[in-house]
Amino acid sequence: MVQAKTWTLKRHFDGFPKASDFEMKLEQLAEPRSGEVLLEALFLSVDPYMRPYSRVRMKEGDVMIGGQVAKVVQSRNPSFPAGSVVVANCGWRTHAVSDGAALTPLAAGWPQEVPLSFALGAVGMPGLTALYGLEEVCQLKAGETVLVNAAAGAVGSVVGQIAKIKGCRVVGCAGSDRKVAYLRELGFDEAFNYKTVTSLEEALKKASPEGYDCYFENVGGPFSSAAMPLMKPFGRIAVCGSISLYNDTTPQTGPYIHTHMIFKQLRMEGFLCSRWARKDQEALQKLLAWVKEGKLKCHEHVTLGFENMPAAFMGMLRGENTGKAIVKV
Amino acid sequence: MVQAKTWTLKRHFDGFPKASDFEMKLEQLAEPRSGEVLLEALFLSVDPYMRPYSRVRMKEGDVMIGGQVAKVVQSRNPSFPAGSVVVANCGWRTHAVSDGAALTPLAAGWPQEVPLSFALGAVGMPGLTALYGLEEVCQLKAGETVLVNAAAGAVGSVVGQIAKIKGCRVVGCAGSDRKVAYLRELGFDEAFNYKTVTSLEEALKKASPEGYDCYFENVGGPFSSAAMPLMKPFGRIAVCGSISLYNDTTPQTGPYIHTHMIFKQLRMEGFLCSRWARKDQEALQKLLAWVKEGKLKCHEHVTLGFENMPAAFMGMLRGENTGKAIVKV
Repeated sequence: MVQAKTWTLKRHFDGFPKASDFEMKLEQLAEPRSGEVLLEALFLSVDPYMRPYSRVRMKEGDVMIGGQVAKVVQSRNPSFPAGSVVVANCGWRTHAVSDGAALTPLAAGWPQEVPLSFALGAVGMPGLTALYGLEEVCQLKAGETVLVNAAAGAVGSVVGQIAKIKGCRVVGCAGSDRKVAYLRELGFDEAFNYKTVTSLEEALKKASPEGYDCYFENVGGPFSSAAMPLMKPFGRIAVCGSISLYNDTTPQTGPYIHTHMIFKQLRMEGFLCSRWARKDQEALQKLLAWVKEGKLKCHEHVTLGFENMPAAFMGMLRGENTGKAIVKV
Repeated sequence: MVQAKTWTLKRHFDGFPKASDFEMKLEQLAEPRSGEVLLEALFLSVDPYMRPYSRVRMKEGDVMIGGQVAKVVQSRNPSFPAGSVVVANCGWRTHAVSDGAALTPLAAGWPQEVPLSFALGAVGMPGLTALYGLEEVCQLKAGETVLVNAAAGAVGSVVGQIAKIKGCRVVGCAGSDRKVAYLRELGFDEAFNYKTVTSLEEALKKASPEGYDCYFENVGGPFSSAAMPLMKPFGRIAVCGSISLYNDTTPQTGPYIHTHMIFKQLRMEGFLCSRWARKDQEALQKLLAWVKEGKLKCHEHVTLGFENMPAAFMGMLRGENTGKAIVKV
């Protein structure tokens, strides 16, 4: 009999999450029955979406939602043999018994030299989100100028690199000079620290005086108010996240955007990467190929120890990570 | 030699337009040369777009922009014979000499019983705007629920009627009980006076408890803040106008919409009817057919006298019109 450690949502977050909002609980797992497998977590993901989802998808006492890379340690399901590695959407837990429904095998042909944890980053949900946001939502064309914020994060850093692969000019914004240096390393054409510029509007104008064709939105709030007037006619805004708003206790307000939307005929679309799930396998192969070719880099910010998951999550929400925030069990 | 009366923008509007912002000027017109025609205005249009366009498309002293239905009184252009009726994009003027570039003949097969002024309304730019907004932007499907505001206006009243023709459920909002009665006459499923409800949110919820698939936006501002949380997943918002914002001297603010956009995967698109100009002739025939069949009604709010154009324009911006605001020379 295996005992799983889990992190539960003790009480719904009110404003920025606090350590006392989480509670670790032990769970006795039954032996896997026919069709089931026993999983052991290797790497767990902490992602911004968990903050808003906690309110709509979880009740107090539930195990925190999230993905992990896990090893199958016992198998009664031939699709997932013992010893194989899977991506499991089974929440913040060290062990799980699964009937396979929330499991995905590692992308076919995963090479030894690519870290398994990349399946939670550039070759996983964040990578797919970046790819679908650019291809499906923005319908990005070579030669266009792309703006991305939270650009040193798990999604933003992939957005910028894919846009470069596709022959675009990329402007990225991040919240520290170290992150900005990282963006330059990744090949962004322009990058700046939005926290130290005197005027965000001026910095955005300077970075692309002719404006922006595509705007990959990870931040929302006042950043979006500064960027919206700088969109080119027929510009596209892919709304992936709004991390600057997730911890609001009273909603932030900003100028209405209608006039820009109308006279520049802008298109703004919110999206979740699950919409294109039927394309995931093909898309993961594309991402994996770029990683192997060295065109797509994935820096990881690794926190050690399952017990530090809340700290890793809160640190990620504060922007402490450069690249993908990961917890190694 | 013909003398044209014109209304010019004396000074740029600062807040709500005032009578003193306009100036009537006389203009001596030269004889039409080869390829040119002399036009005499029959009906002139006053439309909301003129307010924001005045700032971006005009300088002080310019003749106010706008469309009119005019008679060709003298012709040296075989495409527009003397006696024919045209739609002319030549501004607020009683007479004009045109080389034909800004002229469109009346839609082919225009029947005697359809008033010529409809070419400025249901069978003109506002009708096209309604049609393209629903078909091209919203990609409306039968059985969906459509929300439209400023629903008794030139565009809104056509939006509701086309949505009904297409088998949708329609909720319309307007600013007076008389207008609401008009919406019921037109066949709207639900209609209410947004000025007299205690809570706009509650009224919108009550009118469609399951939410809205499509939202045809003519108003913007606080109305949009109330409507946005009520969109269904994959809802579409066609941003046609934002009349509640056009006269702002300092921009109004409202809650950021990112979270709704993301988690409901909403698509919001601003548009100008000129985008689909290549389809205009076909679309006008569709609108004209609906008018002939009695499926598309066009109430007109007629102001008499060219000298009253500024008053008609300001009245329209105040919402005094039910249906299309027209000036009859």
